[in-house]
Amino acid sequence: MVVAKRETDLANEKALGKITASRVFWCDIRRASEVIPELGDGLLLHGGPPLQWSNMCGSMRGAIYGAIVYEGWAPDLQVAESFVNSGNISFDSAHEHSALGPMAGIISPSMPVMVLENETFGNRAYITLNEGLGKTLRFGANDSSVIKRLKWMEQTLAPVLKEALSLSGPIDITNMIERAVQRGDECHNRNKAATSLLIRKLAPWLVKTSFSKEDIAEVLFFLDSNDHFFLNLSMGTSKATLDTIYSIEGSTLVSCIATNGCEFGIKVSGLGNRWFIEPVVSGQGNYFEGYGPEDADPIIGDSFISEAAGIGGVAMAGAPGIIRFVGGTVDEAIANTLEMYKITVAEHPRYKIPVLGFRGTPLGIDIRLILSTGIVPVFNMGIASKNPGVGKIGAGFFRPTLLCFQKAGKELGLIE
Amino acid sequence: MVVAKRETDLANEKALGKITASRVFWCDIRRASEVIPELGDGLLLHGGPPLQWSNMCGSMRGAIYGAIVYEGWAPDLQVAESFVNSGNISFDSAHEHSALGPMAGIISPSMPVMVLENETFGNRAYITLNEGLGKTLRFGANDSSVIKRLKWMEQTLAPVLKEALSLSGPIDITNMIERAVQRGDECHNRNKAATSLLIRKLAPWLVKTSFSKEDIAEVLFFLDSNDHFFLNLSMGTSKATLDTIYSIEGSTLVSCIATNGCEFGIKVSGLGNRWFIEPVVSGQGNYFEGYGPEDADPIIGDSFISEAAGIGGVAMAGAPGIIRFVGGTVDEAIANTLEMYKITVAEHPRYKIPVLGFRGTPLGIDIRLILSTGIVPVFNMGIASKNPGVGKIGAGFFRPTLLCFQKAGKELGLIE
Repeated sequence: MVVAKRETDLANEKALGKITASRVFWCDIRRASEVIPELGDGLLLHGGPPLQWSNMCGSMRGAIYGAIVYEGWAPDLQVAESFVNSGNISFDSAHEHSALGPMAGIISPSMPVMVLENETFGNRAYITLNEGLGKTLRFGANDSSVIKRLKWMEQTLAPVLKEALSLSGPIDITNMIERAVQRGDECHNRNKAATSLLIRKLAPWLVKTSFSKEDIAEVLFFLDSNDHFFLNLSMGTSKATLDTIYSIEGSTLVSCIATNGCEFGIKVSGLGNRWFIEPVVSGQGNYFEGYGPEDADPIIGDSFISEAAGIGGVAMAGAPGIIRFVGGTVDEAIANTLEMYKITVAEHPRYKIPVLGFRGTPLGIDIRLILSTGIVPVFNMGIASKNPGVGKIGAGFFRPTLLCFQKAGKELGLIE
Repeated sequence: MVVAKRETDLANEKALGKITASRVFWCDIRRASEVIPELGDGLLLHGGPPLQWSNMCGSMRGAIYGAIVYEGWAPDLQVAESFVNSGNISFDSAHEHSALGPMAGIISPSMPVMVLENETFGNRAYITLNEGLGKTLRFGANDSSVIKRLKWMEQTLAPVLKEALSLSGPIDITNMIERAVQRGDECHNRNKAATSLLIRKLAPWLVKTSFSKEDIAEVLFFLDSNDHFFLNLSMGTSKATLDTIYSIEGSTLVSCIATNGCEFGIKVSGLGNRWFIEPVVSGQGNYFEGYGPEDADPIIGDSFISEAAGIGGVAMAGAPGIIRFVGGTVDEAIANTLEMYKITVAEHPRYKIPVLGFRGTPLGIDIRLILSTGIVPVFNMGIASKNPGVGKIGAGFFRPTLLCFQKAGKELGLIE
């Protein structure tokens, strides 16, 4: 048993070494079907573990209808619905295609995706561009304003950003997360400082592109209007970082976390590509005026990979602004992070929290520590309306149960 | 005596009411001589209380030689020196002309100045544009690269920003300080988050100006390269705020703080426009490689008005990044701010420090409290080389002695 423990420690050290050596750059924007060739004949990717159409929740369905109209596969939402119901569309988890997305996380072939490259290990992750708040596809909204914005993102935003990136060279997102964490972001539910850093870096290169001043100004207004623009870069960076620890034999570290609105799932480094799932729980949160828990869709999306990468809920101590928004006190935010050190094996060498004396964020969620302490990770989240077509109605946090961690623990031989 | 105390309290409340009601906007850029007509026939403005040429320190002299060459009043620095020594230039404190500047704080007629308007009370403050770090006029550097940059700022930067401002409308700087204080800036020695906020706000409007994309890109590269660009806006905002409390009879609140490299001076609300001065002290700091205390010029500049307005050194708890740079720990930064509450009469209603549970920054430095506690304010500072022509060589903090506060206290009848 001592030997086994030692072997696990070594495996986890190896995994941690890969995580902390990773440096992820935003290097390009491509059409999704170019980099994910499986897309293109009726396949859509969605957030969370793989899920059948019949089990999908309202916001995911709303996003799917919208994506079908956006692609021109149906003239309107009603036809889109019967199009899906007739079995014309197949689905898969974006994670199985080096991709991910916030909330519903729908990726269709024509959507532009950002390419996040792990410079250290060469692997890439793909993620759509963030649409902003309010009525957006990822929250299940799908009216003509949503589709129009997606088209503008495809035809203007993406080409302008792509050319700016080609002029500036790849942008070090790991470094931007590092700086943003020192400015009150946890880069999951709060991305204000990070988005500002990105805009100031991009702005002169945007101006140097061959596009018209009108297009460039429109892009800059859009970026400035959306404090969550950075979220998708942060998520892609977490994935391109954690994808390097799949299948490190014996490692008990969590390598992926996501929900599909129906099931909450994790992957574990030593257990390869398998999902360990449990029914998705309810969270706590603050709602925009006029909305309450009865309006909320289940917790959904791939953004919970943040917490496995040392940001988000585990780093709340550094982002008191977000706990004020979701409810709670600064002391509670600090207590949350201190608790998370009990189920993580390391402190992030670059993501550091000023209020904790620049202590690194809790890094490396360990199934062993979760099972021995009974403490589960805390996750920040956005809240979508259960009514397809509405969008975001609040934000909060949640903790899953022990179930999926126990399932993984059994598979690892940690418990019976 | 009880009545007198009560009257002082009421006067201080009145002063505080004006400070907290102030909302300052950056509304324009003008040529200095247009808004300060006294400029123009051989008058230069400088930082700190009024000072004779013979008493000026190295960096202020260096800046003056540079300004003379910049204005074309002398062909080179040597001629500039004899030009001053022959009595061709007169000097005055910028503060006596609704203006101020960081470090040497030299303002000459052709320099563009930003106009900061207190929307609540209508008064304005004028300040030059920040040149960046390294070799700059405000740190006494004056070679051709410095003059060339000043000319570019006059001929490109200022007109582009002016037109962008006319398109965007006035920008609420009080609000940007509020947001930056929640992101780890104290808006005196650290302006990273604030500068980012400003750039993302300005960028689309810059693109909408009539200037060429080349000029606009150059402006955006310049802004992105200078994390202190916001400092001058912050200083102008503090002045436009505190200028409203000159001459509130009976008020014991500090209304202005500055040094000229020779003398440290304060003004007090109830004592009008008079300076109370003491010899400038030495501070503590960290130096760039190759420099030490023996290379440092005396503490200089108008930026210490920040601390009188509730930011800078008194708000260090919210800016752990800066204390790490100037030396010290996060706990010491917090202790500094907690100590400053002992000599201030209020907490800022908008500038709030997350790590203190969103407590407002210490606001309203009170001569009575300084005299009764013996605690003097702590100030953040940049360190200039004593060798004119070098520029910034470090950063740190200092505390003045009690002397100038005692002088003001005597005048107020608080002590004998």
